[in-house]
Amino acid sequence: MNYKMIGRVNALILAVEAAFMFPALLICLWDRDFPTALAFWHSILLTLAASGILALFSRKARRGFYAREGLVCVGISWIIMSLLGCLPFYLSGQIPHYIDALFEIVSGFTTTGASVVADVEVLTRGVLYWRSFSHWLGGMGVLVFLLAIIPLSGRNDGFTMHLLRAESPGPNVGKLVPRMRQTAMILYLIYILLTILTVLFLLAGKMPLFDAVCTAFGTAGTGGFGIKSDSMAGYSPYLQNVCTVFMLLFGVNFSCYFLLLLRRFRSVWQDEELRIYLAFFVGSTALITWNLRGFYETIGETVRHAAFQVSSIMTTTGFATVDFDAWPSFSKAILLCLMIVGACAGSTGGGMKCIRVLLLLKIMRRNIQQVLHPQKIQVIRVNGQVMSEKILGNTNAYLAAYVVIVISSFLIVSLDGFSITTNLSAVLACFNNIGPGLELVGPAGNFGSFSILSKLVLILNMLAGRLEIFPMLVLLSRSTWKHQ
Amino acid sequence: MNYKMIGRVNALILAVEAAFMFPALLICLWDRDFPTALAFWHSILLTLAASGILALFSRKARRGFYAREGLVCVGISWIIMSLLGCLPFYLSGQIPHYIDALFEIVSGFTTTGASVVADVEVLTRGVLYWRSFSHWLGGMGVLVFLLAIIPLSGRNDGFTMHLLRAESPGPNVGKLVPRMRQTAMILYLIYILLTILTVLFLLAGKMPLFDAVCTAFGTAGTGGFGIKSDSMAGYSPYLQNVCTVFMLLFGVNFSCYFLLLLRRFRSVWQDEELRIYLAFFVGSTALITWNLRGFYETIGETVRHAAFQVSSIMTTTGFATVDFDAWPSFSKAILLCLMIVGACAGSTGGGMKCIRVLLLLKIMRRNIQQVLHPQKIQVIRVNGQVMSEKILGNTNAYLAAYVVIVISSFLIVSLDGFSITTNLSAVLACFNNIGPGLELVGPAGNFGSFSILSKLVLILNMLAGRLEIFPMLVLLSRSTWKHQ
Repeated sequence: MNYKMIGRVNALILAVEAAFMFPALLICLWDRDFPTALAFWHSILLTLAASGILALFSRKARRGFYAREGLVCVGISWIIMSLLGCLPFYLSGQIPHYIDALFEIVSGFTTTGASVVADVEVLTRGVLYWRSFSHWLGGMGVLVFLLAIIPLSGRNDGFTMHLLRAESPGPNVGKLVPRMRQTAMILYLIYILLTILTVLFLLAGKMPLFDAVCTAFGTAGTGGFGIKSDSMAGYSPYLQNVCTVFMLLFGVNFSCYFLLLLRRFRSVWQDEELRIYLAFFVGSTALITWNLRGFYETIGETVRHAAFQVSSIMTTTGFATVDFDAWPSFSKAILLCLMIVGACAGSTGGGMKCIRVLLLLKIMRRNIQQVLHPQKIQVIRVNGQVMSEKILGNTNAYLAAYVVIVISSFLIVSLDGFSITTNLSAVLACFNNIGPGLELVGPAGNFGSFSILSKLVLILNMLAGRLEIFPMLVLLSRSTWKHQ
Repeated sequence: MNYKMIGRVNALILAVEAAFMFPALLICLWDRDFPTALAFWHSILLTLAASGILALFSRKARRGFYAREGLVCVGISWIIMSLLGCLPFYLSGQIPHYIDALFEIVSGFTTTGASVVADVEVLTRGVLYWRSFSHWLGGMGVLVFLLAIIPLSGRNDGFTMHLLRAESPGPNVGKLVPRMRQTAMILYLIYILLTILTVLFLLAGKMPLFDAVCTAFGTAGTGGFGIKSDSMAGYSPYLQNVCTVFMLLFGVNFSCYFLLLLRRFRSVWQDEELRIYLAFFVGSTALITWNLRGFYETIGETVRHAAFQVSSIMTTTGFATVDFDAWPSFSKAILLCLMIVGACAGSTGGGMKCIRVLLLLKIMRRNIQQVLHPQKIQVIRVNGQVMSEKILGNTNAYLAAYVVIVISSFLIVSLDGFSITTNLSAVLACFNNIGPGLELVGPAGNFGSFSILSKLVLILNMLAGRLEIFPMLVLLSRSTWKHQ
């Protein structure tokens, strides 16, 4: 294991994190909120100190870097980043318990949006900003950011690729351009442009600047932390619709936008994952609208709420305009299923990803075909390309790991004695990085009442969900540490 | 498609079914319950008529018979058998609606034990007998029975094997002895011996003969239809413990008993599936006992109830000694997970089967290993034998199909507007052939309140669960019918 290289990457990540805390510090000073400013100041110093110690330890790192080191590095960096990133919440006393603060920042970085805070409106603006910004940073991935700005590996493209692969969602991370570093830069440019667009559209609806920036962070990272107790319910229908559209846009594979820039409209239009993603959106919205007939005054209002909630849940954002826990069972069942499906690979959204659902359906169909025609050799294609058996095997292993983790987490969380719906939806909401679940952890509730053990399990779920399970499993696997 | 051969097999099955209705008819006559006797008499005549028509249509069948025809044949035969098997319930008027009667008999044949009858004690003894006997017949499979008694295929062992494979549970149906027909005979002999043993042990506890026979049928088939409203709650602790043990025994792979007869104790002791099965039983019982501390008066009573419910749920029998829906969440969560795991392959139990859980865990572990050591070729072994990639692929496809079916059924059943726990546990209880679920369909409830659409979905779930999904999927697949 190339510990020094891992240490070096982590030192850089902590330096970046400390730098990103500065805007929050400035907001506190602007608001003359000196206690919170002091908390940020101490957090920055501690983070920089940790970065310095790591840098000192990891001088003269070897060059060699393999896939497993990429996984370990990403897993460790997200944990360290969270352990220090929650300090502003904790030191300012606005989230008094360290585990709660950790839960909140992991929820932020992993773009989950599950909160332990009962009333977010008592938080100061600096804390609210850092909370929302954590979504934006975690959405595209802090390592991707690092790789985009720093030529960390010289000419060693494999290094960059292993890290990018481990941090980016989806079964099959492709290069947009031949060099990985440029891929990371293009991804972040698209990300920044779309975020600015969101802010502009929100400002056009007369949303205050601070609200617009925080909401845009939550939307772009498909995170879901709001700055109001009622999430998006208090904003105008126009602002809600803007959110619906942009959440949906941030759930699309970013390589589609790259293809759009290259004017390859045909490839985008024929993208199978995009099609199934939009089909899920339209189908679910239609079914929920039908199921909710008579629930709201006008059909327009019903469509708006249905589309918003579907977009919010399937992109795993987690904003809400209504308390959907009060909706009829069928609508809730659809939302529960969308929680599992999730957004597209290569987007900021979480969940299992549409491409995996597509692959699983194709694997199932192939199995039936094989029984019917045992002699025929059958390959699985997506967008015309043959999927290698390795990718299919990984997809299957992902599903198996998914089921195992959901079930074991559900069992541990059940120890707290809440209802089955609460427990199951809490695990799914955290693991798929959505945020709100149903009943006790529904849009009107929060995660504060769980025990420390449950919170730790849910923290691991959020990390495993964001990093797509394997970096976490590799960290916990004995044989990672057995062989040097 | 060899329709004539399929017709011929079905004609024989219906003849066997009609013959098995006779004992119920005799019980009715003995009880001087002439209306029910008449219902049975008409049912027998109708079943024989259907058998005759099929036999007439399918004279001069070709010999050729492939795997897909095995699947189609098994799928169709279970449907036809159920359509006629529910006639006694319907014609006697004891279950007035045909769909309800169909639900009840499918629940019987598939050894589910989910009932639409609110109070079973108003049913007459003839109907109760037929209801319980359907478990026994469905447990080992009526086709397996047919193959054991009739040399249907002459020297064509492939024919027998395709049918046996399609009807028997488990990813990898092995031959106990070189000839398939003898395998079927040995299986049924073990089955009959164990059933007789159950009856004797129950009689020793002073259970009335009729009760003992019906309870033994429910236990042997791991079905769960009781003849009392309170299931097993009213019987003595001794009788409950006898049930606990025998349910557990019927959930074991029957080839283990064959190995015991051959005195190959070592192979049985080292069987990985048996070990994980017993580990689940002991572990779950211990955890639930711990969770239930203070719930019952003595520790002995707690262990008895915990062991009974664990054994009943994990073997997918569905008997109950208490209303476990009133237990704390953690215990209910364990039972919900056990519903998914199920019993061993090659037993009468349902669920996903322990061997598949074992394989999925091993597939997951291999995937981690492959990331860590990409060069190493890694095979998966069970009991020392290398599992072929085909079996692993089938296991994965099974899991995918499992998830897809559970989710889509859950969505449709949700239309009835009951709670998420009710709907999800109803689907799981039917699909895994358990019987009772939680809340509305818990041990104290029944499936009567669902709509016809939901009942039909649950009927398909029960059949798909019993036949391990693929025969049903093949029946519904277009390409089965496209190519002759």
